Amino acid sequence: MAFSPLMRELMDALRVLPGVGQKSAQRMALHLLERNRVGGQRMAQAIQSALDRVGHCQRCRALSEDEICALCLDERRDNSQLCVVQGPQDIFAIEQTGYRGRYFVLRGLLSPLDGLGPESIGIPQLLQRIADEGFAEVILATNPTVEGEATAHYIAQSLQDNGILVSRLAHGMPLGGELDTVDGGTLTHALAGRKAMEL
Amino acid sequence: MAFSPLMRELMDALRVLPGVGQKSAQRMALHLLERNRVGGQRMAQAIQSALDRVGHCQRCRALSEDEICALCLDERRDNSQLCVVQGPQDIFAIEQTGYRGRYFVLRGLLSPLDGLGPESIGIPQLLQRIADEGFAEVILATNPTVEGEATAHYIAQSLQDNGILVSRLAHGMPLGGELDTVDGGTLTHALAGRKAMEL
Repeated sequence: MAFSPLMRELMDALRVLPGVGQKSAQRMALHLLERNRVGGQRMAQAIQSALDRVGHCQRCRALSEDEICALCLDERRDNSQLCVVQGPQDIFAIEQTGYRGRYFVLRGLLSPLDGLGPESIGIPQLLQRIADEGFAEVILATNPTVEGEATAHYIAQSLQDNGILVSRLAHGMPLGGELDTVDGGTLTHALAGRKAMEL
Repeated sequence: MAFSPLMRELMDALRVLPGVGQKSAQRMALHLLERNRVGGQRMAQAIQSALDRVGHCQRCRALSEDEICALCLDERRDNSQLCVVQGPQDIFAIEQTGYRGRYFVLRGLLSPLDGLGPESIGIPQLLQRIADEGFAEVILATNPTVEGEATAHYIAQSLQDNGILVSRLAHGMPLGGELDTVDGGTLTHALAGRKAMEL
């Protein structure tokens, strides 16, 4: 039996969500139509409102429905530190560490093969903002992947004559990790970055 | 950092989907806003259209945007068999077996404690349809749970004087199952329903 056209369109449309395959999409569509039409209505409206009104903060480039986001407007935050992340989701991860400085979202990483150069990921805006706001430290928190390292390296080089402290997240053993399951690269970093124990 | 109000509403709204928790909802919301706004737009519209226009087939009670669904209108199907299922998703499961008769969707099971009596799950309509359409066999394909069995039993009793063959899906070992992992009830059914091997 073929699904009706609208059901098929709904199932196909739900598959744009990350991690949703054909089976989940079918289950979701039936759930919305059969058990929770009120919730489905709310969801359709929430998606529409967010798409219509959520853009990017002009200062940090995070997702925001205002021109300048709440975090950038918050005067209690530390204006001496700027943390550079590759995507808006990383802000939430860094916030959980207790960091209370400022942010800049690259929204991508340098990837010459994909045609992503410094302009595509907002590096000119980043450098302009650093020049304008006088941060004491810029923390490069891109992921420790090839592109993440290359992007961090590029930004660090662009800042090398500014007298600003440019730092990178530490690499090493994850808490609770086991020596014999962690990859060699991580272990190499962990050994090279070893610290004297404080007793 | 708090999410902006529209982002929070979008994440809350996405949690109405089955199997979507806080973390998945966050990932989905960021994905829609950051990477696939076109897909998000399509999704919002698909949900809205489906909610506005998909109702229930007046004959089989499956989800349909027409008064009578395509399956009920299909004249090539076998009019002698009616398969009774508890929800519309079960139709798709039964279709995969090659069954080509008619369907009736209860949309629920008898559950006196929850106030679900025969009327709530459409048993009067079912009996009326059976009386009108003259099926030779009614297959009760509710799930083999307490409520599913009770519902099947109730329907079978209501039909016992009609001279219609009323059948129930076989219980037994699932294909590929192992004797020492299958539950006792299933194994009891499998043993009681054993068949002579055809050589």
